[in-house]
Amino acid sequence: MDLLKEKIVAEGKVLSDTVLKVDAFLNHQIDPVFMQEIGKEFANRFRDKNITKILTLESSGIAPATMAGLELDVPVIFARKRQSLTLTNNLLTADVYSFTKQTTSKISVSHDFIQADDRVLVIDDFLANGQAALGLMDIAEQAEATVAGIGIVIEKGFQEGGQALRDKGVKVESLAIIDSLENKQVVFKEEVRQQ
Amino acid sequence: MDLLKEKIVAEGKVLSDTVLKVDAFLNHQIDPVFMQEIGKEFANRFRDKNITKILTLESSGIAPATMAGLELDVPVIFARKRQSLTLTNNLLTADVYSFTKQTTSKISVSHDFIQADDRVLVIDDFLANGQAALGLMDIAEQAEATVAGIGIVIEKGFQEGGQALRDKGVKVESLAIIDSLENKQVVFKEEVRQQ
Repeated sequence: MDLLKEKIVAEGKVLSDTVLKVDAFLNHQIDPVFMQEIGKEFANRFRDKNITKILTLESSGIAPATMAGLELDVPVIFARKRQSLTLTNNLLTADVYSFTKQTTSKISVSHDFIQADDRVLVIDDFLANGQAALGLMDIAEQAEATVAGIGIVIEKGFQEGGQALRDKGVKVESLAIIDSLENKQVVFKEEVRQQ
Repeated sequence: MDLLKEKIVAEGKVLSDTVLKVDAFLNHQIDPVFMQEIGKEFANRFRDKNITKILTLESSGIAPATMAGLELDVPVIFARKRQSLTLTNNLLTADVYSFTKQTTSKISVSHDFIQADDRVLVIDDFLANGQAALGLMDIAEQAEATVAGIGIVIEKGFQEGGQALRDKGVKVESLAIIDSLENKQVVFKEEVRQQ
């Protein structure tokens, strides 16, 4: 998605060889009009998959997932990473290690909102080692729902998550794939191919 | 907002005299089309306030705030409750006691994204004792920004937050105000007035 790549270059900050900061439009400040374009892009890529539900993870997945849900006109569930007063029963859970936070958390989704006849689109902001997406897939599978696809805003192609998810045979659509963050430069996957 | 009240009655669950669970469309599962109506309602009520930025708190504030941001075409910042790998410097912070979680957390917003010339609309899902909104106002004030208004999806009118915020002289718009949750019944504020 060219608009996304332009925004990453213009507003992103490379913090290290493995960490890209996009707090300016995705992870802290949100650009809502741009998020709607993200949502439309996800919707276009998965419109043929008869999605009935979108599953994401708090917090940075919520905005892109909600916009995709608006375009596809389906509900969006955000898995909780922490205890909630109201999210207490009928829980499906999975353990997820966060690359950015360097901690393991138990994510929870209520079985009230995801059923065996659901066709689920998993959406998340970043794909690094794939733990979050794998955890969400695990939860969908516990509900015996079908994971019809995975939508990622930014994939770090030099980490193992992309391969791990694609090896499971599910359609993975990343709106931008980064091949390298070395030397404080963002190199997108297409650019490497052209060299 | 009648559509909101209908949804609360149809899909909400009264857990106790003080806790309403709306996981079905706001706090865990999100109804994106309905959230867009919420966003439009907030936008209509604050369109005359020259809002330049919306400030909310992760996680349940993100969807309604993002939809309001879409309607008003302004950026949305979600304050972080927990440490983030990328949100590390130039932080404005405030301590907030969460009624639902019964814990105090330090919320953070980067000063990079909120400036003295900003006119801020604070948006949150619930208003109970007002701590979250007061914390967000505190952060806006630290940035010397103007708090032009506060938008709340559901206010629990029998708790002190509404009064605390209105006493500060800022315009507070709650899309539904609940007067009582006793006897497992939701009584909206207008209903009490009519008795």
